[in-house]
Amino acid sequence: MTTNIRSVLRGAIIAVLLATPHAVSASSAEKPAEPEISSFLLDNGMEVVVIPDHRAPIVTHMVWYKVGSADEPPGKSGIAHFFEHLMFKGTTRHKAGEFGAKIAEIGGSENAFTTDDYTAYHQTVPPEALGTMMEYEADRMRHLILTDAVIGPERDVVLEERRSRIENNPEALLSEEVDATVYQNHPYRVPVIGWMQEMEKLNRTDAVAFYDQYYAPNNAILIVAGDVDANTVRDLAEKTYGQVPRGPDLPPRVRPQEPEQNTARTVTLSDPRVSTPSFSKTWLVPSYHTAAPGEAEALDLLSEILGGGSRSRIYQALVVKSGVASSAGAYFNGSKLDVTTFTVYGAPRGTAKLDEVQSAIDMEIDGIVKNGIGEEELAAAKNRFLRSMIFERDNQSSMANIYGTALATGSTVADVEEWPDRIKNVTTDDIRKVAARYLGVSHSVTAYLLPSEPVQN
Amino acid sequence: MTTNIRSVLRGAIIAVLLATPHAVSASSAEKPAEPEISSFLLDNGMEVVVIPDHRAPIVTHMVWYKVGSADEPPGKSGIAHFFEHLMFKGTTRHKAGEFGAKIAEIGGSENAFTTDDYTAYHQTVPPEALGTMMEYEADRMRHLILTDAVIGPERDVVLEERRSRIENNPEALLSEEVDATVYQNHPYRVPVIGWMQEMEKLNRTDAVAFYDQYYAPNNAILIVAGDVDANTVRDLAEKTYGQVPRGPDLPPRVRPQEPEQNTARTVTLSDPRVSTPSFSKTWLVPSYHTAAPGEAEALDLLSEILGGGSRSRIYQALVVKSGVASSAGAYFNGSKLDVTTFTVYGAPRGTAKLDEVQSAIDMEIDGIVKNGIGEEELAAAKNRFLRSMIFERDNQSSMANIYGTALATGSTVADVEEWPDRIKNVTTDDIRKVAARYLGVSHSVTAYLLPSEPVQN
Repeated sequence: MTTNIRSVLRGAIIAVLLATPHAVSASSAEKPAEPEISSFLLDNGMEVVVIPDHRAPIVTHMVWYKVGSADEPPGKSGIAHFFEHLMFKGTTRHKAGEFGAKIAEIGGSENAFTTDDYTAYHQTVPPEALGTMMEYEADRMRHLILTDAVIGPERDVVLEERRSRIENNPEALLSEEVDATVYQNHPYRVPVIGWMQEMEKLNRTDAVAFYDQYYAPNNAILIVAGDVDANTVRDLAEKTYGQVPRGPDLPPRVRPQEPEQNTARTVTLSDPRVSTPSFSKTWLVPSYHTAAPGEAEALDLLSEILGGGSRSRIYQALVVKSGVASSAGAYFNGSKLDVTTFTVYGAPRGTAKLDEVQSAIDMEIDGIVKNGIGEEELAAAKNRFLRSMIFERDNQSSMANIYGTALATGSTVADVEEWPDRIKNVTTDDIRKVAARYLGVSHSVTAYLLPSEPVQN
Repeated sequence: MTTNIRSVLRGAIIAVLLATPHAVSASSAEKPAEPEISSFLLDNGMEVVVIPDHRAPIVTHMVWYKVGSADEPPGKSGIAHFFEHLMFKGTTRHKAGEFGAKIAEIGGSENAFTTDDYTAYHQTVPPEALGTMMEYEADRMRHLILTDAVIGPERDVVLEERRSRIENNPEALLSEEVDATVYQNHPYRVPVIGWMQEMEKLNRTDAVAFYDQYYAPNNAILIVAGDVDANTVRDLAEKTYGQVPRGPDLPPRVRPQEPEQNTARTVTLSDPRVSTPSFSKTWLVPSYHTAAPGEAEALDLLSEILGGGSRSRIYQALVVKSGVASSAGAYFNGSKLDVTTFTVYGAPRGTAKLDEVQSAIDMEIDGIVKNGIGEEELAAAKNRFLRSMIFERDNQSSMANIYGTALATGSTVADVEEWPDRIKNVTTDDIRKVAARYLGVSHSVTAYLLPSEPVQN
């Protein structure tokens, strides 16, 4: 139920939605051709990753800032995403719109997105335009003109974005309150777009402070994928980004963490705009960055086996066999800097009841917790999972996204490269253990989206 | 169900529990003798309130700091309460324990407590000891010795306090998670005692920063009630507190506020230690400081009429007449700086079921929302309510508490004095309106405390 909503919520007005939010390998044994991925640091601390891909005369150029909504000061929710908007305004060197017009003129495309953990800017262009992209991107890293005249109208834009995307969307409203309930202390509780009453007050002082603190080469990662070699990227990067002075050293990204949780919670939104009831159930689980070795990989495979697609246990049992559900599944977002979530969801078909769907999903989880899974089932799931990663990898901008996400959430290039081997090493017992440890507990949050008038009291 | 727990939670290791947490008058028409309450400022910004009470040779001396757990930096939960403990350690002038020994020697008593909004220190002694109390209290406002040797062992004390008061108490654990669910953005979400994993890391740097920021005369209120006159208090205060230099100006106490809420939520704790099931239902409502004129007074009377004691609708219907409940009631805590809560609660008697109790309470609320209340019922409630305030006022330390609480949560001495008249002005329509506006909405949080093994999933 909330898969799409969460992606939308966490994305920005122009957002690349990551189909697979976990790290993926560049060195799978199954890969047909190995790109020589290289990574290095500029003198000012900017990380650079180059992913050669010579199949077409195209490059993907991305800059990732290691700052997201979970790094915002209390009471300033939305500033990370609002700032992403401001990056499209004028600088002391280029007026607003000039960068975008240049990209359009050469047949390129551009994008930007903000999440809890990072903010990224992205262009896809012919290789000969790479230097120009870097010039513009390096320019707006430090030379934005942030006046009230710029900021006021853009604040109205993000407020309208919140109204249209969240306030008008019961699923989105529910998703926000689920996050605020799942996370009792961690700032992942706060929506990426911000709470309306705080967004309304964001001002020039907030924007300038945020820019000065976080937009600097030593807090940024440059990812270039495409028809280009590492030496060329290094030369161009040194001439552009390399000229931007290092910013102040940032403290470690230590956010308030979750307390031990002891309660089962529900969050219910009843709204006349909802036509079909649906539910989701969410547990706090470790991310790749916080997990003990192998646990995040086991959670990834558990989500695949339990509800990752049409071959999964939940889909087979509820949609194919009993037919009680019109949709049902599971997902795990492992690519977070801090503690993350594992979610199952479903909606009834025809005259089936929501609680039948919920019970049937509980039974599937219970089956894995009690009886584990078979060796063949695990092998098939690994195969599906790694194969989907290979398709993913075949896409230049996906590859750039995979590396950017990993590096911005505490993983390394080596982690990404070794990931398929770690997936291969997961055992049936590892799967049963993470299911028992994380999904077998009473302190989950169940969300209900119900058609009907708002319930009184 | 949660009345006691919340008080305990919000109190400190040595706590004065306020029986009536709202402001009360010093000028009720029903009062027999009018104390001449005076208030003034010292040159360094310290507020002083003197409440003469000559019935016995005793004075109550309190210092209230306008800082509580809701003012803590993110990730530093528990520092306000931890700091309250540190205030009982040695200073550069007096070793640890000397102040307490002095109070005991003269037959006095002392107290301290921390809440979300304030931290207070309190002694009751013979009038001739007032100057000595002020000397010690002014001394520890600025001269504490905060070394690792002092801080380490006291941190172990507060950690043990959390273990024994919260971790070992299902009601307390539930209450914490209810607060974390009711408040989606405001720091009232965070327990006063702190989250364990953050308390464990509180250190000398945190303590010194907190002391330097908040413990200064211009952030403090002195309340003296008892057998003393204003001129004596002023002279003594100028010689003691008046010698403490003004601290840095503090910014306005603006905390992150709540977003609009749209969901109904439940929080369930099932624990084998629980013998009787119980529930509570909580709504966000305005406090005296945030409410439109008259609304907080109407909420106070609504809580009295709905569930304020044995004459209330809920008690009469559920405990006296149908007998489905062994306990049931309502409460409203209006004395908060920011948005507060209104709660109803109940527990079944004998073979009655929890949902019978819950439905019966819902019916009582619904009755008021739909049909309002009668003039006689309102008059009787006002009478009970004001009379209980008069009893309250008859107690010297309660009077000191009432003024301290009011001043520390954004009210004035005049607000306290005019409060009985504002209560008298509340109409039956005002009561129905606040019931409909605040309790007639679907976005409440219902808590269940259930006996039994932890539920799987």
